[in-house]
Amino acid sequence: MAEIALLQMIVSPRKEDNLARAEAAIAAHAGADLIALPELFNTSYQVSDWPAVAEALPEGRTARFLSDMARRHKVYLVGGSVPELVGGRVYNTATLWSPEGSLLLRHRKVHLFDVDIPGGITFKESDFFSPGNEVSVVDTPLGTIGLAICFDVRFPELFRAMALRGAELVLLPAAFNTTTGPAHWDLHLRGRAVENTLFLGACSPAPHPEVSYPAWGHSRWIDPWGIPTGEVEREEGAVRGTFSRDRLRAVRASLPLLSARRPEVYGL
Amino acid sequence: MAEIALLQMIVSPRKEDNLARAEAAIAAHAGADLIALPELFNTSYQVSDWPAVAEALPEGRTARFLSDMARRHKVYLVGGSVPELVGGRVYNTATLWSPEGSLLLRHRKVHLFDVDIPGGITFKESDFFSPGNEVSVVDTPLGTIGLAICFDVRFPELFRAMALRGAELVLLPAAFNTTTGPAHWDLHLRGRAVENTLFLGACSPAPHPEVSYPAWGHSRWIDPWGIPTGEVEREEGAVRGTFSRDRLRAVRASLPLLSARRPEVYGL
Repeated sequence: MAEIALLQMIVSPRKEDNLARAEAAIAAHAGADLIALPELFNTSYQVSDWPAVAEALPEGRTARFLSDMARRHKVYLVGGSVPELVGGRVYNTATLWSPEGSLLLRHRKVHLFDVDIPGGITFKESDFFSPGNEVSVVDTPLGTIGLAICFDVRFPELFRAMALRGAELVLLPAAFNTTTGPAHWDLHLRGRAVENTLFLGACSPAPHPEVSYPAWGHSRWIDPWGIPTGEVEREEGAVRGTFSRDRLRAVRASLPLLSARRPEVYGL
Repeated sequence: MAEIALLQMIVSPRKEDNLARAEAAIAAHAGADLIALPELFNTSYQVSDWPAVAEALPEGRTARFLSDMARRHKVYLVGGSVPELVGGRVYNTATLWSPEGSLLLRHRKVHLFDVDIPGGITFKESDFFSPGNEVSVVDTPLGTIGLAICFDVRFPELFRAMALRGAELVLLPAAFNTTTGPAHWDLHLRGRAVENTLFLGACSPAPHPEVSYPAWGHSRWIDPWGIPTGEVEREEGAVRGTFSRDRLRAVRASLPLLSARRPEVYGL
């Protein structure tokens, strides 16, 4: 059993403000076994800021902050995501830190958010970010943990790949919006959890008045039967949940989906 | 534009009663462009009846009935599914008939319903049926149509395979139950439609007092944005919906998920 805290913090355009806010929120949930922050928690979902704020990992300011926080509170910490600078490229990168402050896993967003919904949202993330090329899963004493980011959740293949590599819980820093959120957020979170019989924690920012992107919020902890925990809507707050291997085993025994796959049929 | 009718008919253990009921329901929706019947519409979801009721396709009594109905009403007809006898094996097989009465497509259920949910439902369909081995899609003047059956909907790979072969609408004869229905029926129907940006029509039987299997009903027509049509619950009834290629193109243009896949990353 492990206690999970998903911190739906307000994210402003100012990095130091965001780190201070994250520090306070993490301290308020000290005692949890795993704490997660939202997508782009140090800069907000405001594209003009990304090149300036991008940092190297694990050498940058934000990475050192995350390592310190994990070690200080002896907690597995999902460092939301941050703009990561690698040579001339910038990635949207999520990280997982051990309770000793070590970088255990990094996930560079594989599917960039390029959509054009008339009357809704238009966004072309690929103008600013390069896409990652890896499925991100790591075995830890807490459980086998996968990382994905936001738009990645629309692609069942990535979650299937994590499940087949043993993922028991997936953390998803994310920032759906007020167009796609009401339409598809709970649908995809619950769907990926059920079809792969795993736990899923999705952590969104709460909107900030100076940020034009309308973050949907609604952070959720979902169990492998698809039951959501979390009453938070768009306000600042947190969702607490429990990861239980016994529950995972029980659902997988009753609904053995991973072993019932027919890969020889699909021709994919 | 094509008018779709999903007939949530009561299915009894008596084949001739079921064919008569289907005949009346089809006649009541004459004028629709495509009509669908439920899973195992000629025999009910009562395993002891399956070996005796199984027929050859397209030579058997039920197949001839379906061909006649399609031709008589000049309609694309999804013949729900029936136990199909092939040599010594029995398959759970869905069919699609042209308005001229020709068999256009047959789908043998690929994923058999083997679950054991404590306090809920226990079922081992593979004791009675052999599994199919094909992804089932056919191009027609109405649209490119895929077929799948019930438990198949839990496997995103099969629906992805249909979408990549061009499926624009998928018909799903199905019979979820009162354990899995409230938990996962709408979730999976809407999820498969949205993640593949296609139309999905799911047609369930209504329960019959002599049949112990508690069919969930709740037949649904879902558009590619995930919006469901259909207010029917567990009672006998029908759901009418519209297939629109313009709507399909508009959703695919705004949310280009099929072209944003990263198959080189998944390693599946």
